[in-house]
Amino acid sequence: MKVTVLGLGLMGTALAKALLRNGHETTVWNRSAGKTVEGAVHARTPAAAVAASDLVVVCLSVYENVQEVLTEASGALAGRTIVNLTNGTPRQARDMAERVTGFGADYLDGGIMAVPPMIGGPEALILYSGSRHAFDAHHGTLEALAAPRFMGEDTGLAALYDLALLSAMYGMFGGYYHAIAMIRTEKITAAEFTPMVSAWLTAMMAGLPLAAQQIDSGDHRTEVSSIANNSAGFPNLINASRDQGVGTELLDPVHRLIDRASAEGHDTDALTRLVDLIQTP
Amino acid sequence: MKVTVLGLGLMGTALAKALLRNGHETTVWNRSAGKTVEGAVHARTPAAAVAASDLVVVCLSVYENVQEVLTEASGALAGRTIVNLTNGTPRQARDMAERVTGFGADYLDGGIMAVPPMIGGPEALILYSGSRHAFDAHHGTLEALAAPRFMGEDTGLAALYDLALLSAMYGMFGGYYHAIAMIRTEKITAAEFTPMVSAWLTAMMAGLPLAAQQIDSGDHRTEVSSIANNSAGFPNLINASRDQGVGTELLDPVHRLIDRASAEGHDTDALTRLVDLIQTP
Repeated sequence: MKVTVLGLGLMGTALAKALLRNGHETTVWNRSAGKTVEGAVHARTPAAAVAASDLVVVCLSVYENVQEVLTEASGALAGRTIVNLTNGTPRQARDMAERVTGFGADYLDGGIMAVPPMIGGPEALILYSGSRHAFDAHHGTLEALAAPRFMGEDTGLAALYDLALLSAMYGMFGGYYHAIAMIRTEKITAAEFTPMVSAWLTAMMAGLPLAAQQIDSGDHRTEVSSIANNSAGFPNLINASRDQGVGTELLDPVHRLIDRASAEGHDTDALTRLVDLIQTP
Repeated sequence: MKVTVLGLGLMGTALAKALLRNGHETTVWNRSAGKTVEGAVHARTPAAAVAASDLVVVCLSVYENVQEVLTEASGALAGRTIVNLTNGTPRQARDMAERVTGFGADYLDGGIMAVPPMIGGPEALILYSGSRHAFDAHHGTLEALAAPRFMGEDTGLAALYDLALLSAMYGMFGGYYHAIAMIRTEKITAAEFTPMVSAWLTAMMAGLPLAAQQIDSGDHRTEVSSIANNSAGFPNLINASRDQGVGTELLDPVHRLIDRASAEGHDTDALTRLVDLIQTP
């Protein structure tokens, strides 16, 4: 297959290299000169890059750049498939789909669930949404980048899933950083403590399917760990953090939600009730 | 073995039942009458309960109650081993050790890493700290409750580890709740989405040993996912949440830390740098 990659940041470069490793004839373009990928054809303009291949993978830093570059190449878009892997929001993806299909191209949006060194490896996953036809037609080629997974024909879905997964990750990392900040006040190393964290979080993660069931059904009753239990116990966490000289800013929002759930009469519910209490902006 | 359990809340009851299942002669006491555990001897006063066994497990709702109950039973404490599994802070544990050993008892503090239905099962873990002698002498009996793990002779350590693990859990749950709040705006169920979250968090957890190494060494350099990358990408998460009508209160503190890390010149560092930026209260 002939494939074009627009954008040679860390991720775009990793994508181009994975395509080349899989034997695809790869054309690349980057706004600032000087970035090269061995074995790839370097196009001078976005239009030339797009014209070189039926399949065009876009991986720029922000959507504003995608818009600018595809507008520059708009004359060459008709009949091509644009796979946009640039980080963005569902709304941006939907808007871009409209714009790109307006130029006669097929559009697939993607969310990369991997860091650049993982690209092409067995752990990498890319979520796609938009044109089912484009996904089916290029599935084999996209497999060179990461395991491809189609989330639906609503173009915004890949970005929505991507961002939702990232928010789960940021939550986990935030909790981990607070935990490390606490234990290292007693000269315990992160290396000593981390296997315990991993085992504990893995055990807690085993409860997520039940949590999901409670959230979907709206039946949050529990005899295991209630809002009242958590509201009663949370001050220990806050007080101990303060005693150890560790700020509580990463825990405060969960604490506030738990106390609000209690104040609003949800004492006998599980923590899953908190999903309903996240503020509407 | 003769064992006494003070406190018959959900957890205390689970502890007493596990001891009975393992053939221990179990005496129980609870402040408010009416709570019973089949097969246990019910003592009328804390002093009678303490006098009945060499090993006394305390599991009350708050430390204030532990202090009150053990003061009431202080005449019976000499020569006994007190294992206090009440939730508290490291400071409270250290203070209680001083008080209890002052009455001539040996003191072990514990943090239960389990919910009541897990007690006595293979997944339950209890962290202990304080008297090494007490731990070694009663290890076999304590195994009836959960896998026992000795964290050190500083009595505060079990509570410190316990609370640090809880903070990691609250972080993960907070991130998960935000993620669910986002995806359900598009009528995706938590049940559909949760296996993806678990797989993703498990993949991200595989990076924690490297994160620990960076934190311990203070060398946070990365070519994978920098503060700059995360600072550039975070607005997508915030904007998408707002577009979907989901408040960002659970994500804002991580976002603020990332932006502060960037402003303070840590752009080329990994997210692990955030541990250093948690405020001192």
